[in-house]
Amino acid sequence: MNASIRSASIARMLRPRSIAVVGASTDFTKVNGRPIKHLLGKGFAGRILPVNPKYEKIGDLVCYPDAASLPDGVDLAIVAVPAGQVLEHVRALALRGVGAAVVFSSGFSEMGAEGKALEDAMVQAARETGMPVCGPNCLGFINAFENVYATFSQYADGETGAGPVAFVTQSGAFGTAIAALARQRGLGLGYFINTGNQSDLTFAELMTAVIEDPRIRVAAGYLEGLEDGDALIALARRCQELGKPLVLTKVGRKASGARAAASHTGSLAVEDTVFDAVIRQYGVLRARNEEQMLDMLEALANPRPALGNGLGIATQSGGAGVMMADRAEEVGLAVPVLTPAIQQRLAAVMPAFGAAGNPVDVTGQFVARPELLRESVVALMDDPNIHVAIVWLQLMTAHVDLLVGIFREIRERTTKPFFVCWVAAPDEALRRLRAEGIVVYTAGERAVEAAAALAQYHRSRSRLALSAPAVPMPRPPEGFMPGPQPTVEATAWLREAGVPMAPVALARTAAEAVAHWRQAGGPVALKIESPDILHKTDIGGVLLNADDETAVREGFASLMRRADHACPQARLDGVIVQPMTSGHVELVVGVKRDPVFGMIVMVGLGGVLVEVLKDVAFRRAPFDETEAAGMLAELRMSALLDGVRGKPAVDRKAISAMLAALSRWAAGMAPVLAELDLNPVLVGNDRPVAVDCVMVLQDAATAQAQPAQS
Amino acid sequence: MNASIRSASIARMLRPRSIAVVGASTDFTKVNGRPIKHLLGKGFAGRILPVNPKYEKIGDLVCYPDAASLPDGVDLAIVAVPAGQVLEHVRALALRGVGAAVVFSSGFSEMGAEGKALEDAMVQAARETGMPVCGPNCLGFINAFENVYATFSQYADGETGAGPVAFVTQSGAFGTAIAALARQRGLGLGYFINTGNQSDLTFAELMTAVIEDPRIRVAAGYLEGLEDGDALIALARRCQELGKPLVLTKVGRKASGARAAASHTGSLAVEDTVFDAVIRQYGVLRARNEEQMLDMLEALANPRPALGNGLGIATQSGGAGVMMADRAEEVGLAVPVLTPAIQQRLAAVMPAFGAAGNPVDVTGQFVARPELLRESVVALMDDPNIHVAIVWLQLMTAHVDLLVGIFREIRERTTKPFFVCWVAAPDEALRRLRAEGIVVYTAGERAVEAAAALAQYHRSRSRLALSAPAVPMPRPPEGFMPGPQPTVEATAWLREAGVPMAPVALARTAAEAVAHWRQAGGPVALKIESPDILHKTDIGGVLLNADDETAVREGFASLMRRADHACPQARLDGVIVQPMTSGHVELVVGVKRDPVFGMIVMVGLGGVLVEVLKDVAFRRAPFDETEAAGMLAELRMSALLDGVRGKPAVDRKAISAMLAALSRWAAGMAPVLAELDLNPVLVGNDRPVAVDCVMVLQDAATAQAQPAQS
Repeated sequence: MNASIRSASIARMLRPRSIAVVGASTDFTKVNGRPIKHLLGKGFAGRILPVNPKYEKIGDLVCYPDAASLPDGVDLAIVAVPAGQVLEHVRALALRGVGAAVVFSSGFSEMGAEGKALEDAMVQAARETGMPVCGPNCLGFINAFENVYATFSQYADGETGAGPVAFVTQSGAFGTAIAALARQRGLGLGYFINTGNQSDLTFAELMTAVIEDPRIRVAAGYLEGLEDGDALIALARRCQELGKPLVLTKVGRKASGARAAASHTGSLAVEDTVFDAVIRQYGVLRARNEEQMLDMLEALANPRPALGNGLGIATQSGGAGVMMADRAEEVGLAVPVLTPAIQQRLAAVMPAFGAAGNPVDVTGQFVARPELLRESVVALMDDPNIHVAIVWLQLMTAHVDLLVGIFREIRERTTKPFFVCWVAAPDEALRRLRAEGIVVYTAGERAVEAAAALAQYHRSRSRLALSAPAVPMPRPPEGFMPGPQPTVEATAWLREAGVPMAPVALARTAAEAVAHWRQAGGPVALKIESPDILHKTDIGGVLLNADDETAVREGFASLMRRADHACPQARLDGVIVQPMTSGHVELVVGVKRDPVFGMIVMVGLGGVLVEVLKDVAFRRAPFDETEAAGMLAELRMSALLDGVRGKPAVDRKAISAMLAALSRWAAGMAPVLAELDLNPVLVGNDRPVAVDCVMVLQDAATAQAQPAQS
Repeated sequence: MNASIRSASIARMLRPRSIAVVGASTDFTKVNGRPIKHLLGKGFAGRILPVNPKYEKIGDLVCYPDAASLPDGVDLAIVAVPAGQVLEHVRALALRGVGAAVVFSSGFSEMGAEGKALEDAMVQAARETGMPVCGPNCLGFINAFENVYATFSQYADGETGAGPVAFVTQSGAFGTAIAALARQRGLGLGYFINTGNQSDLTFAELMTAVIEDPRIRVAAGYLEGLEDGDALIALARRCQELGKPLVLTKVGRKASGARAAASHTGSLAVEDTVFDAVIRQYGVLRARNEEQMLDMLEALANPRPALGNGLGIATQSGGAGVMMADRAEEVGLAVPVLTPAIQQRLAAVMPAFGAAGNPVDVTGQFVARPELLRESVVALMDDPNIHVAIVWLQLMTAHVDLLVGIFREIRERTTKPFFVCWVAAPDEALRRLRAEGIVVYTAGERAVEAAAALAQYHRSRSRLALSAPAVPMPRPPEGFMPGPQPTVEATAWLREAGVPMAPVALARTAAEAVAHWRQAGGPVALKIESPDILHKTDIGGVLLNADDETAVREGFASLMRRADHACPQARLDGVIVQPMTSGHVELVVGVKRDPVFGMIVMVGLGGVLVEVLKDVAFRRAPFDETEAAGMLAELRMSALLDGVRGKPAVDRKAISAMLAALSRWAAGMAPVLAELDLNPVLVGNDRPVAVDCVMVLQDAATAQAQPAQS
């Protein structure tokens, strides 16, 4: 379907002026009665059209016997009938020209193959007239701005004031809980959407629709799985363009599907690690659980950006200050020493027994002298190295008025973001501060993590604005044979793409090997070359440091013999002759095809480190040198690149350039690249050089069903 | 003072029958009025004796003009006067024979040297009659069992029902906040004690006193610093004996005092790492912040122990189940597959659409069919591999009655611990479950962490019960010279103590070196020997693989020359001759003298790993082989010991035996050992061998002020 027609249909679904309820009940406590109760009770201004042959009226509403008898131009139908009846109703709604359907019913693909077939048939019926379907097996959605309550979620039972947060969740039960927690914190959800089985409308599609709403400032998503990586990336990019943060929580950190796979030690990359790396690459913030998500949303819904990572802390407890400063370091914030001018201002207001550093300990004396707190926090925030501040206090049940007044004044006299962290706060304090639009937390470490998210969001904005990924990508070669590629050709392609490769030459005979050694003018490595032998060392297929005619000649014969012995069926193309390369740092570099995100470039420190520590970093191709430098910085053993134990530092820029070049090449090769391993890549005083290369291509048809690179 | 007299004085202070309030005010909102208000209002049954020359009476209470006029036998005096007047009052109280004093006043050591002098004088005055002092600069304490409110903490303003938790805090403000949070959760604090400056009574002393109270089941402490490691360890041991868990939160994770020190890359061990390792060694649970502390306390205050680390999870959301299972793996819990018998029981009660694995997804259908939830949770907990269970649900505002009933029945039908995790719970649900004694959390990951703490506590109990550390320790040698010890003697001491050392012989001349080489019967290493050169490699003081007479002779000369050139002042004893040792795993092992905990043994993987990753583990000496094996398991690169890249596994038991032997030796040497480095220790197919040894002793007088080993 035409994309703009589809997005218009989704927009119409989200802001309907008429809603049919198929299978409507007169019992408003039931799944099929609750939407009507909410639509009526919460002031939906459009038409509500119950559909049920059993009733003539439900309350004051005319009830229609079936979809066919509905009037023209119904924007949305809620389907709340048993699974077995859904197909006929959806077909009838589509034929009647209804704009969209949201299907509550469960009993579809979540139940296995039979349910999946029923679900497919339903989607097929809807697609015949282009009617989008949300669900099945979902709680529906809320557009709180227009009082659209197409849902039976328990969340709708309480106050559901509109606000700047759009929340889209795959899970109904957990999503409802998160929405309710958001309400407890006074965070207004403009949209609440449960996508359920996502038979037609997906998480990314619905989120993309709601973030366009100018009343939405922050997007939050809860995911349990992901199929369409490209759509998620497009969503992330659109969020960046709009300047609206996207926060995601995704369960399944330990493994993709089968949890048992997590203990499989053979694979270096757990899929979640890739997910994590890729979403961060595109500026998405990840929250590890529902509490952290809400903490981040509170910070991000606040309109003041943190233009750097300097955290100012004011407390009435030295210990709380130390705890927060420690956490700040752990999550990438700085707790800068204040400038002399600011220190002087603080000294002027602070009593003798308070500390004037950062954290600033204002002590409990501010109850008697409010200016203590007010002036020191304002001074702290005036420091040019402070970009976000946290004020920590506790209890103060008797002083809520005073404190709300102080914080209001601080807000008026500053432009940077600040959070109040009020431990064991009276409920009234939380309510009143939130009513003032002042962000408030109830635990110090959580406030710090939220400040870090705010700073991280700004960093990702600047980084993505700077990076210009529009580079020409190489095209896959024509007429290649699927499978492992000959080393000489693979090396040439990569070298042409800007990836530094050690020279290689194929010797079909011992005499050719000797000739290549002479040309190399120094010691060479000999490696068996066969499309059937990918792990050469396993069969003794590599000889190092051959440096005279006899060694080369005998080496050639020996490798051919070993290979023939180990793999009698293998086609042996000969032996690769390669000048010996040196380097004191060993990297592994590779490209893998991720089923969700496509071409993923990996870099790690080689040898035992990659095996034992799994010290690797990932990015989706293509990316630029800055992003590549970020990969290196992420490695836990990154310091090895800077020289330890008397070894010189290596050139990080040269490695970054190599990774970026490789990523462009990989993106261009996405239609056909199955796998690439450069292991090891040696780095000495000069630029890095890939010493070994295994490249496997597949034909484009195999790759077709898999994600393209964009 | 006699220890039993002192502990009797502390016990009297904590359960006084008469309390004087020095500096008492008629204004009950003031620091010096609030204790009287609380004592009167909360039903303290003993006598209250205000002391203030300005008043004849405060309320109905007779007011005394000064300490001297107090009646005999006053158990406790609260001192709430300006700092400058504290000394005279404390002296008068001590002379009057008052049992103990708690000093609220600030303006002492927290203000610098002058305040410190005042504080010392005050303690001196009190000690003359053996009157213990709590504070100064503290909020005082509460014994909620006997309604003793010797405090002006805001915490006392609300409900302060007694309960099984004893909470001792160094920080007043943060401690008050934590106490208030405990109240919010319905956790009763039997004792709340703020130790303030700890001029006399310390954290460990007061905690040791309150854990003896049979009404206390769990001890919780908040620390900002620590001076007396031995006292903390004695406390931890006593808690183990009593079977009462001790949970500590200590701020300052990043560095001991000066935060700047954290960036000092030279030191391998940050003091907090040692603190963390040592308290765990003695079975103390560490909570990273106040929220985790309270989460742990809720679990530990429950009388049911978790006799293993198998977690059962029942949810109404698959996603929440995955999130909790992931977290469980991260924190050391297993989420076992259920036995066939239990799976059958579950299948019998579960509807077709629920999953019968672990996590068990009971779906939301239990509202209609309560037996679904009840029977499946009971079945889950009957599984022999499940030791603690979590039931996750959300909102259910309309079904609190039903659910409380279900959980009550589950509790009655099971004996293992289980937690309810109720996200966005109605307040009523939390209150009623807690009233039933059912542990309830409001976030899944936090419930899992609490379950892990429960399991960890049981593990530490079993481990400490098994380990028998009563071993004979070597005694320090007589008549040694302080400073670096000669290699031959140091090696002999360690070998005698059971630490495997490579053979060493000192050559004073080239001829002796040659003789030693001949005796070794193979290649040798030559190392310069001088008490003034500890880092031999830095001056080229080590030659490897000398294996003929010329090499040995020239090597000797060359080392002597180099040393003389690099360090003209150094005393050169000659050259150590040592047979070359091989091994494919390199360890660093050492002993350092920690200012708080005394002799700390360290082990790490050598080479770049210890430098870049800081991959080291610590334990306080002495310890047994099991504890040593735990150190090895803790190393992040631990898998290297099991053989990677075709290398054979090394003998972990032999390494553990070496560490345990070293720890016993170190404990015996505590009076004089300054530092020991065994770097490297090489491990091959045989047992480990220390190849290099730097041992520095100090005279006992220097060490005297430092902690002894117990």
